[in-house]
Amino acid sequence: MRAVILHGPNDVRVEDVPKPRIETPTDAIVRVVAAGVCGSDLWMLRGIAPLPRPIRSGHEFVGIVEDVGANVVGIRPGQFVVAPFNTSDGGCMCCRRGLPIACDNRTFFGEFGPDGSALDGGQAEFVRVPFADTTLVTTPDRPHSSLIPALLTLTDVMATGHEAAKHAGLSEPGSRVVIVGDGAVGQCAVLACRRLGAERIIVMSRDPRRQRLARKHGATDIIATRGDESAAEVVELLGGGSAHVIEAVGTLQSIRQAIGCARPGGRIGYVGLPWGVELPLWELFAKNLALSGGGANVRAVMPELLPEVLDGTLDPSGVFDGVFALDNAPQAFEAMDKRHCIKAMLVPPAFTNNEGTKYE
Amino acid sequence: MRAVILHGPNDVRVEDVPKPRIETPTDAIVRVVAAGVCGSDLWMLRGIAPLPRPIRSGHEFVGIVEDVGANVVGIRPGQFVVAPFNTSDGGCMCCRRGLPIACDNRTFFGEFGPDGSALDGGQAEFVRVPFADTTLVTTPDRPHSSLIPALLTLTDVMATGHEAAKHAGLSEPGSRVVIVGDGAVGQCAVLACRRLGAERIIVMSRDPRRQRLARKHGATDIIATRGDESAAEVVELLGGGSAHVIEAVGTLQSIRQAIGCARPGGRIGYVGLPWGVELPLWELFAKNLALSGGGANVRAVMPELLPEVLDGTLDPSGVFDGVFALDNAPQAFEAMDKRHCIKAMLVPPAFTNNEGTKYE
Repeated sequence: MRAVILHGPNDVRVEDVPKPRIETPTDAIVRVVAAGVCGSDLWMLRGIAPLPRPIRSGHEFVGIVEDVGANVVGIRPGQFVVAPFNTSDGGCMCCRRGLPIACDNRTFFGEFGPDGSALDGGQAEFVRVPFADTTLVTTPDRPHSSLIPALLTLTDVMATGHEAAKHAGLSEPGSRVVIVGDGAVGQCAVLACRRLGAERIIVMSRDPRRQRLARKHGATDIIATRGDESAAEVVELLGGGSAHVIEAVGTLQSIRQAIGCARPGGRIGYVGLPWGVELPLWELFAKNLALSGGGANVRAVMPELLPEVLDGTLDPSGVFDGVFALDNAPQAFEAMDKRHCIKAMLVPPAFTNNEGTKYE
Repeated sequence: MRAVILHGPNDVRVEDVPKPRIETPTDAIVRVVAAGVCGSDLWMLRGIAPLPRPIRSGHEFVGIVEDVGANVVGIRPGQFVVAPFNTSDGGCMCCRRGLPIACDNRTFFGEFGPDGSALDGGQAEFVRVPFADTTLVTTPDRPHSSLIPALLTLTDVMATGHEAAKHAGLSEPGSRVVIVGDGAVGQCAVLACRRLGAERIIVMSRDPRRQRLARKHGATDIIATRGDESAAEVVELLGGGSAHVIEAVGTLQSIRQAIGCARPGGRIGYVGLPWGVELPLWELFAKNLALSGGGANVRAVMPELLPEVLDGTLDPSGVFDGVFALDNAPQAFEAMDKRHCIKAMLVPPAFTNNEGTKYE
């Protein structure tokens, strides 16, 4: 089968690899219908995130169950499934507390965890999913192909945007929030904030296309400046800093921008992967800011978001502004790396149409 | 009058200086009964916190009102007052939100704010207090001298310990909490956690005297190891990391220890002044930790804590294990710097007994 392999920084290849097989009785094999390229894939591409050995990349995928192990009870071949970016066993203390991201048996698809482990990723024709019953989420029916992009956002970015809003303290309607980051997570965070009843959603963006998408998602204000200037604009718009700020980039610059936009005693939800960021803690301390975040608990929030995606009331599909045949993964990575597109979707040959660019 | 002047790193002197006078109609002049030496004074002493020019030090003091400006309405000469470490105007947005630490008109006594401003401090015979009505807190009567040490903790460390517990999320009885730091703030945090109903209070301490005080304050367990080893002990005691951790030191090492002791998704209340600490944000992100803290809102929490100190149900006086005549301030600073005492109290001549070491 075909799979995307990240061999090293700036070295993405699509190769023939062995098709995965059931290895333990709780595994499932999923035929991938569509896979996303994530901003955090770019961290590996750029040599920033660890890449100790070549890896089958991709932690965002949806597909159709091909086969299940003997102990899988809740999932049948033929079902459509949405996969979180990490496995979870459903039974450990963290899973029971609603923190499947910290599951004792978590492993990440297509990227390395802090312990150096990694599963083969989903940018491939097939993928093996351990702990299938407690990792995968099934849809009631086979969804229409037009829903694939929106469903694919649930594997990571929409769930992450939702948790970002929660981390930033958006617990009641009428809130005002600043979102630093106009990428897929930032765009999904706009939707999440609107969904949670935010009254004012201010998005930092300098890119007209991304500004348009943010407005479509519910942004009420766009700020195109940076640094101190952007913080001054927030103060002018809100009559002070914001009680709620979402940081959806993960660089020192973006975190400082978030700090600058926060009012004293405010809350920053940080969900951008902060590779190599060393934060001068005094900057938080001096404004009495709270920081809350980390990787999203996709498996825990999916049951809440999935029905709304299926009935169309939550539509994050607009973040996928680039669709590529799986074999064109290098171009997809490049398009995202150069910010030619917000987010790229990869479609394996079985689901590609004649133009090679559409899932069916 | 006599006052302590910090001239530079390791240069503490007690000198004759002009007695302060009313400068604006909202000022009060306070005759100091006792002043504390704070761990953050040591940051200046050690050349770590900025000391752009010599300063009359001391941000912890209690005393008797000597004089008030024409616009002071709620405070009369002769009243006993407890002073927070910063001024607050009571009317700005932050004050109205319960964040007097971030008051638009805040200035710190005896130390420099981020804007470089500073008020003459309270390690002196007299001190001028701007915004007296909304900064100072009066006691109903002149308290017995035996209550002075406990009242003095309300100016900073007890209030800070209380806020640390709140920041760490101790909102309901029965919680389990780890406290990193066995100094005055850590010791007060033990009292605060017990007061908030914590069932298990684990304190990191290697010093037998400090361990004893922590136990007296309500610590249920003491851990004397450091780093990974201490985190392993917490996991063994609690069957996992702690949902609530208090960081009351402010070094990279102590913050990492707090992170190590936290369970995934846990909350760290950070109240140790983190001068020069650059935190690898990934370490928080990887465990989905929330960090909440900053300088204490002393003026806001004092009304809650003061009655309990006055009736003896809350007694943090044990943190003061060294009492020095004001003129012996250099020895007091040294005793704290060398960890010979947890916290030193300075007593001006008018309140010093024949031995020169007791307020009266």
